[in-house]
Amino acid sequence: MSSEFAFIDRLRLLATDPAARGLDDDVAVLGDLVLTHDMIAEGVHFLPTDPPASVGWKLVAVNLSDLAGKGAEPLAALMGMTLSGDSEWDDRFLAGVAAACETYGLSLVGGDTIALPPEAPRVLSLTAVGRGGNAIPSRSGGAPGDALWLAGTLGDAALGLKTLRDDSESEGPLVEAYRRPVPQLAVGKLLAPYATAMMDLSDGLLLDSSRLIAASKCGAEIDLDALPLSRAFIAELGSDRRAKLTAATGGDDYALLAALPPDFDPLSLSLPARTILARIGTLTTGEELRLFDAAGQVPLPEQLGYEHRTQDC
Amino acid sequence: MSSEFAFIDRLRLLATDPAARGLDDDVAVLGDLVLTHDMIAEGVHFLPTDPPASVGWKLVAVNLSDLAGKGAEPLAALMGMTLSGDSEWDDRFLAGVAAACETYGLSLVGGDTIALPPEAPRVLSLTAVGRGGNAIPSRSGGAPGDALWLAGTLGDAALGLKTLRDDSESEGPLVEAYRRPVPQLAVGKLLAPYATAMMDLSDGLLLDSSRLIAASKCGAEIDLDALPLSRAFIAELGSDRRAKLTAATGGDDYALLAALPPDFDPLSLSLPARTILARIGTLTTGEELRLFDAAGQVPLPEQLGYEHRTQDC
Repeated sequence: MSSEFAFIDRLRLLATDPAARGLDDDVAVLGDLVLTHDMIAEGVHFLPTDPPASVGWKLVAVNLSDLAGKGAEPLAALMGMTLSGDSEWDDRFLAGVAAACETYGLSLVGGDTIALPPEAPRVLSLTAVGRGGNAIPSRSGGAPGDALWLAGTLGDAALGLKTLRDDSESEGPLVEAYRRPVPQLAVGKLLAPYATAMMDLSDGLLLDSSRLIAASKCGAEIDLDALPLSRAFIAELGSDRRAKLTAATGGDDYALLAALPPDFDPLSLSLPARTILARIGTLTTGEELRLFDAAGQVPLPEQLGYEHRTQDC
Repeated sequence: MSSEFAFIDRLRLLATDPAARGLDDDVAVLGDLVLTHDMIAEGVHFLPTDPPASVGWKLVAVNLSDLAGKGAEPLAALMGMTLSGDSEWDDRFLAGVAAACETYGLSLVGGDTIALPPEAPRVLSLTAVGRGGNAIPSRSGGAPGDALWLAGTLGDAALGLKTLRDDSESEGPLVEAYRRPVPQLAVGKLLAPYATAMMDLSDGLLLDSSRLIAASKCGAEIDLDALPLSRAFIAELGSDRRAKLTAATGGDDYALLAALPPDFDPLSLSLPARTILARIGTLTTGEELRLFDAAGQVPLPEQLGYEHRTQDC
């Protein structure tokens, strides 16, 4: 167990309030409000060479993605930012925050700005508050037999990051996916009333799926062939088993993973145009995560996702 | 105007929701909920040599002090923390968080833990949510004629920090005041129904007073001789004009500053034992902050407080 997971376990001992949902979820629920708090750090969650506006966008979007995973509507946000000493950077960052807030109807209502020691990497935090619907799905309500659905495509952002690491001047849809994730708010809201369990994917499908089934105390079978891949991803990496495993273990997807009753067809909902929604598997008895493709069972890769990066709770 | 204040002004353009209170306040108000978000950074708000448990305590206490300034009762918190790679530090930090949460009835309900690049200073954030009473005083409701009252003593923490900078092994009440501030929650709740304006002091009495009168569009006269000083402060620095100016400009007091109607005597309230509550001045017409002592008017010091440190909004 990494020290990070050990630390989360100690946090759990503190978080006994029902609003904390045992920290098994990545949000807290206070009445009909859904609250989430994410931090991003330079050199960890974004690159020093990323355009500052994209960093501002990303800070807002990753928090909104947590709200999307609970079907909540964006309401208000408090932002914590470290002034970088580079006021042009700060201004452009703020323009990105503003663009995302305006796009998704999130009001910035407060926060804190602090100075950091010189040379320290920027650290930015945001607390987003959303209003949940009648049902606010947790990670823990899934049951054997439920169908696993995925909204969005996989692997684009991880591939975009790899491209940027090779050449920080790279552009294109994969780089955009990494820098400007799109929170699946509309789909999340439509799925929430039906979902037995739902979450957004930030650390890779396989790692996040393993969290969902651990919270739901069940297992899962995932069909690699059913994973939705973008044209840009396929153009770059192809769509063989290896490419699919790369897609299933890359972070920063901000797709939604939902467990739905087996007889419910989410494609019957009035989904926004161009929604990508695919049935990728089934929850099972036991507690194992198992992968399949046309050739049969596929061994789980050693690393399921971005374990070291972050742990929402 | 420092780039920090210019930045806050740009933030204000984004924060048009009434819940933001124009960022003139250090909290946001959503229905009966009061939300605040403060960040603290190693080397800026705490010393690398500070005991980790005191850092955890402080992170919670500075946020609770914002709630105290609005008379709100602590409800829930989301914490963002950077794992330091030193699990003993992290554990002891968490013990301090737990102690403060337990002392003040705050439930930790979620948050985020992230890794930072090696050698980066720790940055810790907390969003505290409180439940406000019937009246949630802002900074902007003060009017000429209101009496200015202060709950708590001044200058202890700033002197404690100075002591620690000279010798990181120092101990005593001044060091404790710096490391383990006490949020004035009970007094804040008692004063809130009567206060025309109220706030907690984080950046020094004179600087924070100037913010209160700017928001209230009035002036103020403060009587230096009325400032409450602790015995430990007086033992160290005396109580002459210079000592009082030091107390009035030091940060990290986490005392409460309240404007109250002139005919209202807060000493008639059922205050907790050992509450220190002093009338320190009066709100006036105009927009000036003026200081007096027994010898007459005292020129304002060049630096009113800890301008570079932080700006709550």
